[in-house]
Amino acid sequence: MSRSLAERVTRSAASLATPTSTLDGFREWWRRQQAGDTSRVERIAFDELRSWSFEARTGNLVHDSGGFYTIEGLRVHRDTGPVATWDQPIIHQPEIGILGIVTKEFDGVLHFLMQAKMEPGNFGGLQLSPTVQATRSNYRRVHSGRAVSYVEYFTGEHRPRVLADARQSEQGSWFYRKRNRNVVVEVTDDIELLDGFRWLTLGQLHHLLEYDDLVNMDSRSVLACLPFAFGGEAAGPGEASTELLSWITDARSHHDVTAERIALSRVAGWKVLPDRITHDDGAFFDIIAVDVTTEGREVRSWTQPLLSPRGVGVAAFLVRRTAHGPQVLVGTRVEGGSADVLELGPTVQCTPENHAVLPGAPEVPFLEHVLGAPKGRVLFDTLLSEEGGRFHHARSRYLLVEAPPDLEVPASPDHRWVAMSELAGLIRHSHYLNIEARTLITCLQKVLTCPPTPPQ
Amino acid sequence: MSRSLAERVTRSAASLATPTSTLDGFREWWRRQQAGDTSRVERIAFDELRSWSFEARTGNLVHDSGGFYTIEGLRVHRDTGPVATWDQPIIHQPEIGILGIVTKEFDGVLHFLMQAKMEPGNFGGLQLSPTVQATRSNYRRVHSGRAVSYVEYFTGEHRPRVLADARQSEQGSWFYRKRNRNVVVEVTDDIELLDGFRWLTLGQLHHLLEYDDLVNMDSRSVLACLPFAFGGEAAGPGEASTELLSWITDARSHHDVTAERIALSRVAGWKVLPDRITHDDGAFFDIIAVDVTTEGREVRSWTQPLLSPRGVGVAAFLVRRTAHGPQVLVGTRVEGGSADVLELGPTVQCTPENHAVLPGAPEVPFLEHVLGAPKGRVLFDTLLSEEGGRFHHARSRYLLVEAPPDLEVPASPDHRWVAMSELAGLIRHSHYLNIEARTLITCLQKVLTCPPTPPQ
Repeated sequence: MSRSLAERVTRSAASLATPTSTLDGFREWWRRQQAGDTSRVERIAFDELRSWSFEARTGNLVHDSGGFYTIEGLRVHRDTGPVATWDQPIIHQPEIGILGIVTKEFDGVLHFLMQAKMEPGNFGGLQLSPTVQATRSNYRRVHSGRAVSYVEYFTGEHRPRVLADARQSEQGSWFYRKRNRNVVVEVTDDIELLDGFRWLTLGQLHHLLEYDDLVNMDSRSVLACLPFAFGGEAAGPGEASTELLSWITDARSHHDVTAERIALSRVAGWKVLPDRITHDDGAFFDIIAVDVTTEGREVRSWTQPLLSPRGVGVAAFLVRRTAHGPQVLVGTRVEGGSADVLELGPTVQCTPENHAVLPGAPEVPFLEHVLGAPKGRVLFDTLLSEEGGRFHHARSRYLLVEAPPDLEVPASPDHRWVAMSELAGLIRHSHYLNIEARTLITCLQKVLTCPPTPPQ
Repeated sequence: MSRSLAERVTRSAASLATPTSTLDGFREWWRRQQAGDTSRVERIAFDELRSWSFEARTGNLVHDSGGFYTIEGLRVHRDTGPVATWDQPIIHQPEIGILGIVTKEFDGVLHFLMQAKMEPGNFGGLQLSPTVQATRSNYRRVHSGRAVSYVEYFTGEHRPRVLADARQSEQGSWFYRKRNRNVVVEVTDDIELLDGFRWLTLGQLHHLLEYDDLVNMDSRSVLACLPFAFGGEAAGPGEASTELLSWITDARSHHDVTAERIALSRVAGWKVLPDRITHDDGAFFDIIAVDVTTEGREVRSWTQPLLSPRGVGVAAFLVRRTAHGPQVLVGTRVEGGSADVLELGPTVQCTPENHAVLPGAPEVPFLEHVLGAPKGRVLFDTLLSEEGGRFHHARSRYLLVEAPPDLEVPASPDHRWVAMSELAGLIRHSHYLNIEARTLITCLQKVLTCPPTPPQ
């Protein structure tokens, strides 16, 4: 890993204002974008969906083209955890989409080309999104819409310099083995600034992370993959120790998890109503349908199903600072939709309402340390949205909390202190950091860089 | 990665004789082991199998316990390659087994505890195997056999120092998403030397690699995971460059491969005969059954199915030496049983007979460079066996060939020159190097260390 690249990323993280971009300028631009957003999203019944229908043989909810995604069933068996076997609806989208950010240096500072983008499930309309956020159906124009802007920087034969490029997972409880390609490229040629796009420094993006529902999930995920120097100014990402890799291998070797895709009509414990698919206890999530009308997207009007979670999630890392750099307490997460048994997740990741309906209402380890922490130990606390293209008003409270100095963490296959520099090394590969952990890593970039907050 | 560990591995690789172990001593021990091997393997008809049968509903060949492995069907669709869709029988073994080598320093040199082990499909009876080679059914004693020797060094709560530990794939054309845990541990306490086991240096193991069918597949696979200093004496494994990771991500994002497990009775193009399952063209492989009688294993007599390939495989790396260390020309391998689309494989990996039956008998890229190389450019050339616990007389000719200086390799998603130090970094993780590439990496350790051959 080039040291100078990590230094350039750090420099951008420390820049809150440049001749190219200021936060005041961003705010004015954002207000204009919001004023211009004429989109409208309405819930509809399933029989009002256009080009989507329940397949006769399976009951799966599918698009007429066979593309995009389907709502199917999943049957999960596992040997640990409060529930040994369950059925659930799941989103199946085998295509690898592109989540790409174009960067370019202006005045010696790396800037990131971000987009004001409406997604039908977004809480609050527009969110700040990567330069390109496109399924393969999108950019190959299965739905005959407009071309995806800037996609040629990611799909061409001669791509610009690549700063990061790995397929990363998304919510394993809601998606079956979904991965998107998280890419950052650096352009040195001139590049046209299209309407709806704007250059921002990493420091500005970090600042905007503190606003509820502003920086979208895909942006957070891609930014987490940047070669960030958590170990100090000069060091790039470290390498995972053999001890850490062995701990992960051990955890993955010992879990018996099987997840079998089944027909939606065979899913037990859920019922299909005219306007939603819902769990018998009203827990977890619903599958709903929406009608969308918008300008400024590839097409102007469409309908689609969305997954609408119950409750607000909590995702939190306990953090500690050591002589060798910052560490976080990672938790291993076994999810039905995981591509490889489990991934590393936050210390705490749950929706408290859902835990109450599980047999015995099991306690969530470390939850009280996270939600009950004195204010002085809370380093970050913001409500952020999950992906609005598939989820409806899915929001989680993301927290970074300084661990109490006397916290005891027994050796366990479930939790382990890991150096941030090691996580930065693992995130270069697939299959390691789950999406919630990646959001928190981006928040940690902010907390650990910590430029002074500018006057409002 | 600790530099001193890579140095210690290199030192062991350069040691052909120590007070603990000499090659003459090994040969005498090996002759004794062979003389004591009373095992007998006979082909039988499927209806002579004990505890195995064809399941009525699916036609799958299964063990009564539900453990071990099953012979099922696989239906593969892919968008590239000579054949777009095909069915085949496949071995399904979801458990993660342990392939573990115990190491210990004697007289300042790391020694490896190896085992003379009979497997029913072995060509030539005994082969030199890791300290522990056990499926989870084995070491949890599903078949009520004897305990697996030394397994406690890999399964205990307090394991010794771990030198390498990753789940690695096996033959993706014969196994459905099979992975075994490849582990090397270092012991400092006293350890009893049991009958059938022997300490060897890495240099001795490398020397023995040149004998046909002696060092078994599992040993080669585990040794490849050692932190070996390909870049020079002092350096440990390097880190994969972002360019390399991006090339892999690109290849994996653009292949459309789906592999669906189907009932064996639904497999088209294959027929079930009384004593074998065979392809209509007589190509690829048969599934057969054997009756085994032996001493010196966990149980004394059993029957089991095996996969018996047609022909002898060819697996070869083209190698070049650069100012930055040795490089190999890797090929991307899309196989139906791959857990994650594709892995990096040898420059050439094929069974020439099978290519002849494919539509249009496509040419194998670089095959003539490998098989037609002048003798002076052939660095390694030995017939080695694949795993005898599942395959019957499966052998491949493993070659390392110095690339001609004028070889042109166009930029391609199929082949790329990669530094050995980068591969040594990737092999610390799952999903990167296929089993044939790992065998060749171990052979490259030998070629690049190159101690003088001792007098015979």
